[in-house]
Amino acid sequence: MRPTAKHVAERAGVSVATVSYVLSGRDRPVAAETRKRVLDAAKELGYTPNQAARSLRKQRTQRVCLLQPTAGGVPTEDRLARDLHEMADSHGYSVLTLAVYSRERAEAAVELLRSGIADGVLVNGGEHLTGEMLAGIRLPMVVMRDGDVPEGCDVVRTPEEEPCEQAVRHLVAQGRSKIVYLSHRYELYREQPTGRMLGYLKALAGREPTVVAGAEDRVAAYQATAELLSGPDRPDAIFAASDRAAISAIWAVRDAGLRVPYDVAVVGVGNIDEGLIAKPQLSTVGPLRHDYSDVARLLFDRLLAERPPPPRQIVRSWTFIQRGSS
Amino acid sequence: MRPTAKHVAERAGVSVATVSYVLSGRDRPVAAETRKRVLDAAKELGYTPNQAARSLRKQRTQRVCLLQPTAGGVPTEDRLARDLHEMADSHGYSVLTLAVYSRERAEAAVELLRSGIADGVLVNGGEHLTGEMLAGIRLPMVVMRDGDVPEGCDVVRTPEEEPCEQAVRHLVAQGRSKIVYLSHRYELYREQPTGRMLGYLKALAGREPTVVAGAEDRVAAYQATAELLSGPDRPDAIFAASDRAAISAIWAVRDAGLRVPYDVAVVGVGNIDEGLIAKPQLSTVGPLRHDYSDVARLLFDRLLAERPPPPRQIVRSWTFIQRGSS
Repeated sequence: MRPTAKHVAERAGVSVATVSYVLSGRDRPVAAETRKRVLDAAKELGYTPNQAARSLRKQRTQRVCLLQPTAGGVPTEDRLARDLHEMADSHGYSVLTLAVYSRERAEAAVELLRSGIADGVLVNGGEHLTGEMLAGIRLPMVVMRDGDVPEGCDVVRTPEEEPCEQAVRHLVAQGRSKIVYLSHRYELYREQPTGRMLGYLKALAGREPTVVAGAEDRVAAYQATAELLSGPDRPDAIFAASDRAAISAIWAVRDAGLRVPYDVAVVGVGNIDEGLIAKPQLSTVGPLRHDYSDVARLLFDRLLAERPPPPRQIVRSWTFIQRGSS
Repeated sequence: MRPTAKHVAERAGVSVATVSYVLSGRDRPVAAETRKRVLDAAKELGYTPNQAARSLRKQRTQRVCLLQPTAGGVPTEDRLARDLHEMADSHGYSVLTLAVYSRERAEAAVELLRSGIADGVLVNGGEHLTGEMLAGIRLPMVVMRDGDVPEGCDVVRTPEEEPCEQAVRHLVAQGRSKIVYLSHRYELYREQPTGRMLGYLKALAGREPTVVAGAEDRVAAYQATAELLSGPDRPDAIFAASDRAAISAIWAVRDAGLRVPYDVAVVGVGNIDEGLIAKPQLSTVGPLRHDYSDVARLLFDRLLAERPPPPRQIVRSWTFIQRGSS
């Protein structure tokens, strides 16, 4: 006869619920001594929970899962992926990546994670993952987002609005009269502006905003800027929602025979290294250093801890970094 | 008592080996009528093979796995990922991505795939995956590589050498006297040059080659080019192993106050859309259209077929596309 949780509970002298808590690896407080008794009893009986075997989660799969908001092509997502892979390598873990760019993908990812495919999860954004969906995953988790986050996981916040507002205020202070926001397409579909777009709108303080899509695509950003420059009401500043788009905008201004920043100022978001080889160098809003090893470490601290550590929060602050392009 | 393969074999009137063939979904010829008998018997008995349950592979996980050579940042990999996700979406499949940039990662990926995590695999390159390792995966598979490929899977070949040789020959024919190859770092570690680097060397036909690393990184490519241009023996042509690097090279030439292509010709590899917004437009070697839906379709044809189709091969031919930069 196969041993059951009841047998383990009897042998360890604890309740079945306690056995379940301990073996599921969930973030519940269980005294170290009790925990050891349960693990020892389970080992002696050769007990492994059936049903997707949510047991002994620690060190079970040696895999972590990365949930990314897109299927690729975004430098900061690539950088996060590289830093997580690097840390996973150093701990002998694999990394599974899932793109959650739609409600269907998000639901499938939750289902997959609930099946025990990985020991922990790093969630990067993902508008289609509600806090409730994340809570259903029941794995050690680090969530990078400014919205709703389930209890018990580590959180990484990146407040965008204020530094972006500061960047656009600086353009206003220069006397720029037409400041265009080159936005991500998805920002246009939000019910309420948030983050970088909200920062832009606040800094305009009632002036007429001009929002143009194209920030997710270097080619689209170049073309959108070229079109703006050849139109009747030429902008004298561009605030782009990504550095990639801002760099394309610098090209477009230069190729139109205009000068950056004299004729048109350009400011991006992200602070990717490439901004330093733009001519002039790109003004941007972002982290001073591009390094997500602190985020990856949160996850591995949680995975490798003897007992689930208390939830932590990292605030990655962004700064407006003025360089030659504004 | 749990039903076994033997029970299924008895009920269907076939050998246990045939039951195994049919239920493992391996590429073996089994008559449709026999196949149906086995599937019916398994269903009636409620039989599912134990041990990583390699059974009824079709429609089992509704997931495909994408093996990529890097953890991100390469436009052609991003494009492949997007096209695969799109097709997976249309069939209600999820996509799991694994980066196999090291021997350890490759081995972990094979192990994971053998555990039945997905219904099929799309393998993009991956120097660390030998043909033997791929053969061990035993899943419907499409392999994009010019090297060793296991039997029974679809293959996508992209012969690079000849069109790259043609591109460099064209620089030679223009009378360019110092043609630098801006290579990927990993190409420098190969025992024998292959692909694009081999094409470069062949076209030089005995002239002194100059190989400089930096093609995987826009910033490194810009800096390498700037250094070459300020040196004593300035190149008059650059053949870059990636379009990203070639575009950075165009910037570096322009920022040095030199003219493309008059002072320095630039040719890339990849034919990404961004080459069209470079000034001048980028000459390149690559596919005329960037579309991997034919590759994704191979995989889904295989997954959705009633019986494993015979292995197919796609040759994605590359062309030298001359534009303004050379």
